[in-house]
Amino acid sequence: MKKSFLLGCMLLTLQILVYAQSSKIDHYISTNHKTMLRELMHFLRMPNQAKDSANIHQNAEFLLNDMRKRGIQHVQLLNAPSQKRTPAVYGEYLTPGATTTLVFYAHYDGQPVSPEKWHTSLKPFEPVLINGKIETGAKTIAAEEMDIMRYPDARIYARSSSDDKSGVMALLNAFSALRETGLSPAINIKFFFEGEEEAGSPHLEEILSAHRSLLQSDAWIICDGPIHQTGRNQLVFGVRGDANMEITVYGPRRPLHSGHYGNWAPNPGLLLVELLASMKNEKGFVTIKGFYDDVLALNDKEKEALAKIPAVDSMMMRELGFMQPEMQDVGLSMAVNLPSLNINGIESGKAGSAAANVIPVSASAVLDLRLVKGVDWKKQQERVVQHIRDQGFFITDRDPDEQIRLTHPRIAKIRLEKGYNAQKTDMQIPIMQKLIHTIQKATGKEWVLQPGLGGSLPLYVFEQVLNAYPVTLPIANHDNNQHAENENILVKRFLEGISILATVMMLQPNQ
Amino acid sequence: MKKSFLLGCMLLTLQILVYAQSSKIDHYISTNHKTMLRELMHFLRMPNQAKDSANIHQNAEFLLNDMRKRGIQHVQLLNAPSQKRTPAVYGEYLTPGATTTLVFYAHYDGQPVSPEKWHTSLKPFEPVLINGKIETGAKTIAAEEMDIMRYPDARIYARSSSDDKSGVMALLNAFSALRETGLSPAINIKFFFEGEEEAGSPHLEEILSAHRSLLQSDAWIICDGPIHQTGRNQLVFGVRGDANMEITVYGPRRPLHSGHYGNWAPNPGLLLVELLASMKNEKGFVTIKGFYDDVLALNDKEKEALAKIPAVDSMMMRELGFMQPEMQDVGLSMAVNLPSLNINGIESGKAGSAAANVIPVSASAVLDLRLVKGVDWKKQQERVVQHIRDQGFFITDRDPDEQIRLTHPRIAKIRLEKGYNAQKTDMQIPIMQKLIHTIQKATGKEWVLQPGLGGSLPLYVFEQVLNAYPVTLPIANHDNNQHAENENILVKRFLEGISILATVMMLQPNQ
Repeated sequence: MKKSFLLGCMLLTLQILVYAQSSKIDHYISTNHKTMLRELMHFLRMPNQAKDSANIHQNAEFLLNDMRKRGIQHVQLLNAPSQKRTPAVYGEYLTPGATTTLVFYAHYDGQPVSPEKWHTSLKPFEPVLINGKIETGAKTIAAEEMDIMRYPDARIYARSSSDDKSGVMALLNAFSALRETGLSPAINIKFFFEGEEEAGSPHLEEILSAHRSLLQSDAWIICDGPIHQTGRNQLVFGVRGDANMEITVYGPRRPLHSGHYGNWAPNPGLLLVELLASMKNEKGFVTIKGFYDDVLALNDKEKEALAKIPAVDSMMMRELGFMQPEMQDVGLSMAVNLPSLNINGIESGKAGSAAANVIPVSASAVLDLRLVKGVDWKKQQERVVQHIRDQGFFITDRDPDEQIRLTHPRIAKIRLEKGYNAQKTDMQIPIMQKLIHTIQKATGKEWVLQPGLGGSLPLYVFEQVLNAYPVTLPIANHDNNQHAENENILVKRFLEGISILATVMMLQPNQ
Repeated sequence: MKKSFLLGCMLLTLQILVYAQSSKIDHYISTNHKTMLRELMHFLRMPNQAKDSANIHQNAEFLLNDMRKRGIQHVQLLNAPSQKRTPAVYGEYLTPGATTTLVFYAHYDGQPVSPEKWHTSLKPFEPVLINGKIETGAKTIAAEEMDIMRYPDARIYARSSSDDKSGVMALLNAFSALRETGLSPAINIKFFFEGEEEAGSPHLEEILSAHRSLLQSDAWIICDGPIHQTGRNQLVFGVRGDANMEITVYGPRRPLHSGHYGNWAPNPGLLLVELLASMKNEKGFVTIKGFYDDVLALNDKEKEALAKIPAVDSMMMRELGFMQPEMQDVGLSMAVNLPSLNINGIESGKAGSAAANVIPVSASAVLDLRLVKGVDWKKQQERVVQHIRDQGFFITDRDPDEQIRLTHPRIAKIRLEKGYNAQKTDMQIPIMQKLIHTIQKATGKEWVLQPGLGGSLPLYVFEQVLNAYPVTLPIANHDNNQHAENENILVKRFLEGISILATVMMLQPNQ
């Protein structure tokens, strides 16, 4: 009991809970947290890029076994009929007589990695426990010495530690917490773990369609993304859509010496910087024709919720180390409720010690377009393509042949990646009100209610295919470096997440 | 004799020579060319980046032994007094009573490599013989089957195959050709092989100063660079200067999710493309203030020589696959007689399959500034720095600290690399006239006489330290991919180079 009490103190956000079940759950978490962390770290050792079929299957296999061990029923892979390479993992726990069903979603695939960019003592798929932030020189904690009471600021560093294997494992541990403490849920619980979210969920729609009846529910709880930057928990009722595209422009057919041909032969790096620079104005707004045209304005309730969200701009600018945002006239909360264009990456030749005095043959950039309700992803990509055409580029979908090279002064190869639209759930419907009430009461705190998150998940699919209501309940710390080098999860957030998710699984629909 | 005759036909540019010694030399080359190619390929197997001290020493050691074996005298390393890491290799062959001395220069270090960019069947330090251009699907020739009569279009692919280990080995083989055929030069011959040319020759000046008396001469024959694009041989009387700089601009302190922060947090890629795009106008001219101010105009003789150079613009545009040069109003010959600014490389995040939806922490570009007579390299770098400052950037030479981050909206770290100025030798002085006469007579062809080459070598040092007259005599094919992936030397050019250089070593000063 003392241990449980101490954990309650250490995990600042694990407040004294009002339900009897909560103390049982927290005691269970306190007693078993070392095992939970070991399991998570074992899971993080498996490389998990969606396109890496062999490794993805190893991850799925691990989940199948783990879920069965925990007593989850009807554990199975859900394949898309058209292909079998990146399955979702499903399981359920049905309560006799229950009329309410929640599906809990997380994804087990991760973003690509650039290992050379990680801190010298880290490797993406060799998870380590660090007593704080690695950038501040915090030291490694040996796994056998880990104890949340001794190391309350501990973080696990690895690809997918926050995005989103901690989501997967928090859900499974929450379920185990109920089972092992003898608590009986009043609802049906279903688990759905996707395996290609970071690849843009190319088969999610197919999988949901093929398994429509199995996946019926009152709501989907999406466990992904970060909590609010103030450290407050949040529920998110919408997400931006997302569509990427890659642009490649061309110089000479073969690489040229920059002395013998420099400033005569066209440098593709120069063509690319001129093109990219033409896409934004000095206020940070996108200059592409029609880019903001179809944006559906926020309604009054959303504006009200938005107004209640604590402004974090100054705090975040200090934390992130810059004094001027790209959008100088729009705050962060509003900025993520607009469509955006981000230059994910630019490559032309080499910078740094590998740079050579050369005119490269081509230069590439990857753009990430985020979309809000009202804006169609295909139309938005087409607007960017038209802008590139308007800058004098001949557009092609393959490397230019001889004839194209000699008849067009500027050539751009464009690869349009599959994307998806934004999604929003009405926060006023009964199941959402019940959820908001339950978690605010259980945690004793007011949650941030976000009309829309800046990030993206293919949640439109749940509406479209299943008529379902998705809502996002993130557990990861906001400074988790997701999608980048040195990704990490704050251990206390992971453990708090288990507690919160167990509370949601104990939702009393008629209360 | 038949073999020698056939070789003469196959090597189109090896004309019927008017000197008796020439047929002896060509016979020797014909008989021994397989051995010469094996030796070159052995040499090419040694990685040779100037900063890679261990490998550079292996290269130098190879040259010391090889030169001694060939009967070259006083073979030794010439170190800079300040450091011993990248020595030049020296040797000489003194002719009793000779009053004329030529120093033959080449360099044995190479550009950095990006092996992933090379053709899938090639590795930079595993030289292979290919029966033509690799891009056209030409096949590998087994070393033991190589014969120039059977494979007249053969190329050797490897880093430094053209730039400049073929220069080094052509000089040594030319010397052996004289020795082994019993020909006696009328001049003193000196060899000077530099080991850090591609690193900008940071210690050449020191080495020349320290060994001034050893290196006295009437002229330096610089064996480096490509022949003219028309396939004609050329002598080059000047080179552009060169100075590089690296620019790094900054975004958030840690990488951010492009959904949660995109278009609010400053993207360093966007800052960089705006900055780089501001450096040129739509005509391809540099917009940086003062960039062309100090250019010394060409004199009448240089203009005359320039007018005689066959225009290769249309041919080169077809060969290189583009229909519009960056400088639309200036031809190639004139473009390389102006200062230039080339974007060698740009890196911000990742493009291609490793691209992630992220706002990177920084973005970098490497610029290559080429300089003509009159323009000082330090002043030119400072003009670029001032331009960056004029675009609102705070300039620093290190990663910005907290205070700088929070007080400057735009921050650029600039690393100025050591550079050097342009050089020109007067083509009317007697030793140059003798050289022009000798090689035109020996080859039976009119050579291209270039006032200035687009490329750079630190030839100003020879003037400045030794009062010497350098002139460049290239042997490599112009489509050799020097400085880039798939670097190669056309075998027949290498063999022709040996013949030409042997002729130069047989220069008769009083004839």
